[in-house]
Amino acid sequence: MSTYDVAVIGSGPGGYVAAIRCAQLGMKTAIIEKYDTLGGTCLNVGCIPSKALLDSSHHYEDAVKHFEEHGIEIPGEVKVNLEKMIARKQGVVDQTTKGIEFLMDKNKIDVYHGIGSFKDATHIDIAPAGRAGGSAKGKTETIEAKNTIIATGSKPSTLPFIEIDKERIITSTEALKLKEIPKHLIVIGGGVIGLELGQVYKRLGAEVTVVEYMDRIIPTMDGAQSKEMLKVFKKQKMKFALSHGVTAVERKGDEVVVKAKDKKDNEVEFRGDYVLVSVGRRAYTDGLNLDAVGIKTDDRGRVEVDGHLKTNVSNIYAIGDVVKGAMLAHKAEEEGVVVAESLAGQKPHIDYNLIPGVVYTWPEVASVGKTEEQLKEAGIEYKTGQFPMRALGRSRASGDTDGFVKILADKRTDEVLGVHMVGARVADLIAEAVTAMEFRASAEDISRMSHSHPTYAEAVKEAALAATEDRALHI
Amino acid sequence: MSTYDVAVIGSGPGGYVAAIRCAQLGMKTAIIEKYDTLGGTCLNVGCIPSKALLDSSHHYEDAVKHFEEHGIEIPGEVKVNLEKMIARKQGVVDQTTKGIEFLMDKNKIDVYHGIGSFKDATHIDIAPAGRAGGSAKGKTETIEAKNTIIATGSKPSTLPFIEIDKERIITSTEALKLKEIPKHLIVIGGGVIGLELGQVYKRLGAEVTVVEYMDRIIPTMDGAQSKEMLKVFKKQKMKFALSHGVTAVERKGDEVVVKAKDKKDNEVEFRGDYVLVSVGRRAYTDGLNLDAVGIKTDDRGRVEVDGHLKTNVSNIYAIGDVVKGAMLAHKAEEEGVVVAESLAGQKPHIDYNLIPGVVYTWPEVASVGKTEEQLKEAGIEYKTGQFPMRALGRSRASGDTDGFVKILADKRTDEVLGVHMVGARVADLIAEAVTAMEFRASAEDISRMSHSHPTYAEAVKEAALAATEDRALHI
Repeated sequence: MSTYDVAVIGSGPGGYVAAIRCAQLGMKTAIIEKYDTLGGTCLNVGCIPSKALLDSSHHYEDAVKHFEEHGIEIPGEVKVNLEKMIARKQGVVDQTTKGIEFLMDKNKIDVYHGIGSFKDATHIDIAPAGRAGGSAKGKTETIEAKNTIIATGSKPSTLPFIEIDKERIITSTEALKLKEIPKHLIVIGGGVIGLELGQVYKRLGAEVTVVEYMDRIIPTMDGAQSKEMLKVFKKQKMKFALSHGVTAVERKGDEVVVKAKDKKDNEVEFRGDYVLVSVGRRAYTDGLNLDAVGIKTDDRGRVEVDGHLKTNVSNIYAIGDVVKGAMLAHKAEEEGVVVAESLAGQKPHIDYNLIPGVVYTWPEVASVGKTEEQLKEAGIEYKTGQFPMRALGRSRASGDTDGFVKILADKRTDEVLGVHMVGARVADLIAEAVTAMEFRASAEDISRMSHSHPTYAEAVKEAALAATEDRALHI
Repeated sequence: MSTYDVAVIGSGPGGYVAAIRCAQLGMKTAIIEKYDTLGGTCLNVGCIPSKALLDSSHHYEDAVKHFEEHGIEIPGEVKVNLEKMIARKQGVVDQTTKGIEFLMDKNKIDVYHGIGSFKDATHIDIAPAGRAGGSAKGKTETIEAKNTIIATGSKPSTLPFIEIDKERIITSTEALKLKEIPKHLIVIGGGVIGLELGQVYKRLGAEVTVVEYMDRIIPTMDGAQSKEMLKVFKKQKMKFALSHGVTAVERKGDEVVVKAKDKKDNEVEFRGDYVLVSVGRRAYTDGLNLDAVGIKTDDRGRVEVDGHLKTNVSNIYAIGDVVKGAMLAHKAEEEGVVVAESLAGQKPHIDYNLIPGVVYTWPEVASVGKTEEQLKEAGIEYKTGQFPMRALGRSRASGDTDGFVKILADKRTDEVLGVHMVGARVADLIAEAVTAMEFRASAEDISRMSHSHPTYAEAVKEAALAATEDRALHI
């Protein structure tokens, strides 16, 4: 029986990064993955493939809508070859998951393909599992691990009355590999995943209707972002039914019918050919056999952990989507590093307030720190500085004039408490805000730093000027 | 005669920002501009129009080279309508210069169109001037100003033996409004301007040859950037003649001949239909009548200033390209703010080491702090962390795999001393590096901050990990 210092169950960004960091720190490390390819949801059916489709569909939209004004002439109609677009996406995924194999190899991490389940606190059975639970071969083997990190991630949630048929009533996983462009895609849930994939198919020619229970889209982000994105999406002819509670989803041949109640309790019906159910994700612990070791889960099925990501069993840790907190790849990565370094006797730390969140639509959406709603609720006195992208030369040059940068700062100390952005490249611009907040910068600090002209980053400086003393230069 | 607290001569980014900040601080302010439109070189014939053409030509290149792999099908050949592309650019410029008019108005700054020249230290004559010195109307008026800020910028340089005919032997100004795509554009000078405009026309179908006196392109940036960009440009089929000193430029009808000596002193000849002379820019003080007040200039014609940007005449200041230092719009802006705040009795400060530099080719190039060459020359012991863009999921998804982030940190203290990037969006990513360096971050500080996945910004974190202890996670 092979023996390890650490076994990691699940090879998503949390798991594989934890494994690499453990190996870097000299621990003998194993990683267990149920699927044929490494990388988990993020690399296989999440962040990476969705970005590939977002990029491809963005190019298509540019060609159809904006090439003429740029003086680029196309003879006839631009067409989408969806099969090829999806194949390119798969190529990107394959390259990336192979990259993780390379990293496991380079760091001398043993990779086991199979379903890991606890035999006891220091032994893990690895049962054979074909992809998607199909045709398993081989037999169960057992490894010994001084410590185990659970990094089994999450699966798409659904509503109790919806039956996902994976054909026309689908989750993000299927939406990433459709065989045709929907005529009318109904998206249940106006969160990150629904909006990203909704925008992909809208660009490619589908009619898209988003049905959202709350009264705004991306409800966890700052209200100004929700409002701006709603405006942008509507300009792009996406349709929205906010404050609508879905009550039934029915399939009738090639048609799907979504029934919902609006806020006046009237029944409303949406008819389309595909329904994307994107109502969130749930922690995934199936098959782990947590009961064998008595690991506690919470009321939402998440593995309970303390401030050091330790479960109630002292040599077993859990990270990423399977524990509480934002379901973000980079949050899982930080947690993976923290557990590895804790095991090595270091004293690492995560400031969860400074983990940025991003929506990869175009314009992009990015946030870090507190939203205006959170500051209000906490009774913190704050100042706001907001600067519109349309006032930037850079935005005008590229035609990306939607969006803004909004900085919230403590009214008394001027310390930056939250930064919320909508616009071109803000997925990357948020890194500046994270850095500033890590050093507890004041809005004035940011406003006094030189920002290259002409860049989108100038909006950060201008928003900081506006927050400092209402003295933006360019508005 | 109108009397002002401050008169600003020149309405480029240095001048107009200085004027706005003076007005914000309660000073009665005038701005004097020779041309019909405000905004100076940057807005009219520099940063902004070049970005518009870079963006348009980038779209065209994507369509021609990459749409097929994305599954975007175009029936027939994509064509450039250069006239329309140039018209769009002009639209962007017009919108942006009108924006400055709006800002002058909003801040109650009096705008004078004409050539400002010193009558004495507190009086400025404003002589009528038609655009490009043509048909001047009206008569000279004089204003009184307690303080004056010279912000007259710079003009393209040439070599003593080159006669710019503005038709086929041109500067960046003409290159931004050509009537046809050159068959073969010869670019003299492999600096920022030559490379940006060279790439524009290369994408649009021209053959492009860059003739550079030094043994590398973008010679003021880090050597790794020069090397990477040379590789990228060559992949894009641009041609380079490095270590070539141009000796003659001749026009023969529609042909231009550039003669140069290579490093073995052999004479070489390049034949094309257009020559872009981009050998730098020179400070522009023509018509200011500096002698009337005895303002000193240096051996390169730049107005001499002290650490507070004051000339040898105590109430006259100078900022931007007309003084020493990097010829960058945002450097001029910072200087404009500093002078305004100094005049208001504040004690502002610029850290010139933390003014970033950007090349807006694709991939973009961006730098802040010391280059490896500068650290070597200064005898500072340093560590290097470098991370290639191709190892990022985000880069693979978009297909932008060229480039890297390179972090130079003090060997002993780990303080970040320089950050040098090539890649998608690095024009904006450099803002994170500036912020980190403003707070004197160590490489480890950066490496411990959460960077959204998947973003290009992850390369900054990984390079920081590599610099800290050679422990990048993803390579």
